[in-house]
Amino acid sequence: MNKTRVTELLGIEVPVIQAGMAGGVTTPELIAAVSEAGGFGTLGAGYMEPEAMKESIREVKKQTSSPFGVNLFVPEEDKSTDNDTEEAMEALHPFHEELEMKDAVRPESPSVFYEQVEGALAETVPVVSFTFGVPPEDVVTSLKQAGITLIGTATTVEEALLNEEAGMDAVVVQGSEAGGHRGTFNGRFDKAAIGLMSLLPQVADHISIPIIAAGGIMDKRGMDAASALGAEGIQLGTAFVTVKESGAEAVHKGAILKATEADTVVTSVFSGKPARGLDNRFIQEMEGRKTLGYPLQNSLTKPIRKEAERQQNTEFMSLWSGQSPRLAQDVSAAEVIRNLIGPWG
Amino acid sequence: MNKTRVTELLGIEVPVIQAGMAGGVTTPELIAAVSEAGGFGTLGAGYMEPEAMKESIREVKKQTSSPFGVNLFVPEEDKSTDNDTEEAMEALHPFHEELEMKDAVRPESPSVFYEQVEGALAETVPVVSFTFGVPPEDVVTSLKQAGITLIGTATTVEEALLNEEAGMDAVVVQGSEAGGHRGTFNGRFDKAAIGLMSLLPQVADHISIPIIAAGGIMDKRGMDAASALGAEGIQLGTAFVTVKESGAEAVHKGAILKATEADTVVTSVFSGKPARGLDNRFIQEMEGRKTLGYPLQNSLTKPIRKEAERQQNTEFMSLWSGQSPRLAQDVSAAEVIRNLIGPWG
Repeated sequence: MNKTRVTELLGIEVPVIQAGMAGGVTTPELIAAVSEAGGFGTLGAGYMEPEAMKESIREVKKQTSSPFGVNLFVPEEDKSTDNDTEEAMEALHPFHEELEMKDAVRPESPSVFYEQVEGALAETVPVVSFTFGVPPEDVVTSLKQAGITLIGTATTVEEALLNEEAGMDAVVVQGSEAGGHRGTFNGRFDKAAIGLMSLLPQVADHISIPIIAAGGIMDKRGMDAASALGAEGIQLGTAFVTVKESGAEAVHKGAILKATEADTVVTSVFSGKPARGLDNRFIQEMEGRKTLGYPLQNSLTKPIRKEAERQQNTEFMSLWSGQSPRLAQDVSAAEVIRNLIGPWG
Repeated sequence: MNKTRVTELLGIEVPVIQAGMAGGVTTPELIAAVSEAGGFGTLGAGYMEPEAMKESIREVKKQTSSPFGVNLFVPEEDKSTDNDTEEAMEALHPFHEELEMKDAVRPESPSVFYEQVEGALAETVPVVSFTFGVPPEDVVTSLKQAGITLIGTATTVEEALLNEEAGMDAVVVQGSEAGGHRGTFNGRFDKAAIGLMSLLPQVADHISIPIIAAGGIMDKRGMDAASALGAEGIQLGTAFVTVKESGAEAVHKGAILKATEADTVVTSVFSGKPARGLDNRFIQEMEGRKTLGYPLQNSLTKPIRKEAERQQNTEFMSLWSGQSPRLAQDVSAAEVIRNLIGPWG
């Protein structure tokens, strides 16, 4: 995998995309370092207020003139009742107590998606990528009219087809190995947890737009395997969480660097949507307790995660990681990319 | 992947192993066809009585002089109580009723493992492979003294190391994509469901014995990817279930040939051990009901599966399948192997 339709589409040297991880990992420094090294940096703007997002975009542009993207979360309707909310708040009580915090306030999460789209247009980012669904037709139209390249996310063949039909220029095909949120938006999460060895060739047989493989890929071995299976680019998340330029908490980086392939689980307890991370007490003790959907559960647990970070207590943080933590390294972003390209790059 | 340590170890032309699927799929015709085509056929003897196993071995030898193997299940202690058994029998009542069958009889499953080992020694099979654990030291010693090559199964790095330490000559590294039983024997099943993209390179970094990749591999793309990730051989299950020589029920073959990558789940309700297969009513309706461990649950549900087969009712059969059913074909075993080798073989 060297020059592909993905390098051409994104105007980059090597088909390596840094995943748009939300929650502070994707600092302007990380994005710029990846893009400067010939890869493609992505701002994980899913959780960001539109103004903060625009400010980050401007900061990236100060640090690099190379292309980069912004990742947004496609919103879905909230169906929870007041009673659900009460129960979900009650479920978190023991954690507030243990961390010596005040109890939760009722979560509010008005969607900022359309404002984020406006922000991306205003700041003329070259690429916008989407997770949790295919964006509405009006969004696709306005972004395309502005000459912005669009990338979707799929976890099944059917989702890949929906992305192609919606006009995405390329699609990230996310295997079950991937850390962080599952992109599944059309079907059961457990059935859509498909390993890349299975998922890539089956998707490749059904769509024409370029495939970007995501999930467990950390080095040249994974890049070559993804290429053999039909991908024209790769997207790395965990491999960039532990690099020097990443905004991840030091204890999060440390936990990944110490972890094994059998330390992760998929859980909805942090955000309301299934995501893969290192197992810890919060995940274990929340089992069977009431949770809300995304983004309400995310709002509800945010104070706990923040306080746990302050206390450097990894038992109550969301330690997102894919299934290849043994391959994670404490290096620079450029070094991750150099290792991928190999001597023949 | 062409000539590797696996082809050398097993004395075969191409490093393609037909998985030792228990339950009647691995007919002498299938095993012989695979071995005659230059691959490596395996008798899935896990559930077999020693006499039937020996008879099958003799039948294979009539049909081919090429090497083949026998797969055995390493037994574990049963910890269920009489009360557990009563509850598990009761849980199956609605299915017996719907299929118009008599109720279950108390299951008995004395382990036949040591007799199977004796049988393999008596019939001088060239290779014995193991699932569900590392075989006891005395078994390893006696088989090795007889010049028999030993292959283990691992689903994590730790399990691969245990196989290497126990003296296995090679190890099947089973990804979460794989159909049928999970080989996990050291840790939680959910955490040990690791996609091959993650699992193979991490195992390759830790062991020296040759790796045989298993899970979702159906064609040359998968074979090349496995090779890039560090494997020296591949093991195919589902790809051989649907071939003409396979002993799988026609309705099972048909169900796989119609299925998509998002149709499988991992369930313990059929055998007492987690296994991947196509979702159906038995799996759905048994959710939350009492089950026993392997092999008791397997004995308990066998009459239901047999009766469902007789009625051609796939809703109550175990339709084992990996996550790549879209790549399954209704061809001969030799054609599967020819497709793998490719024009450069």
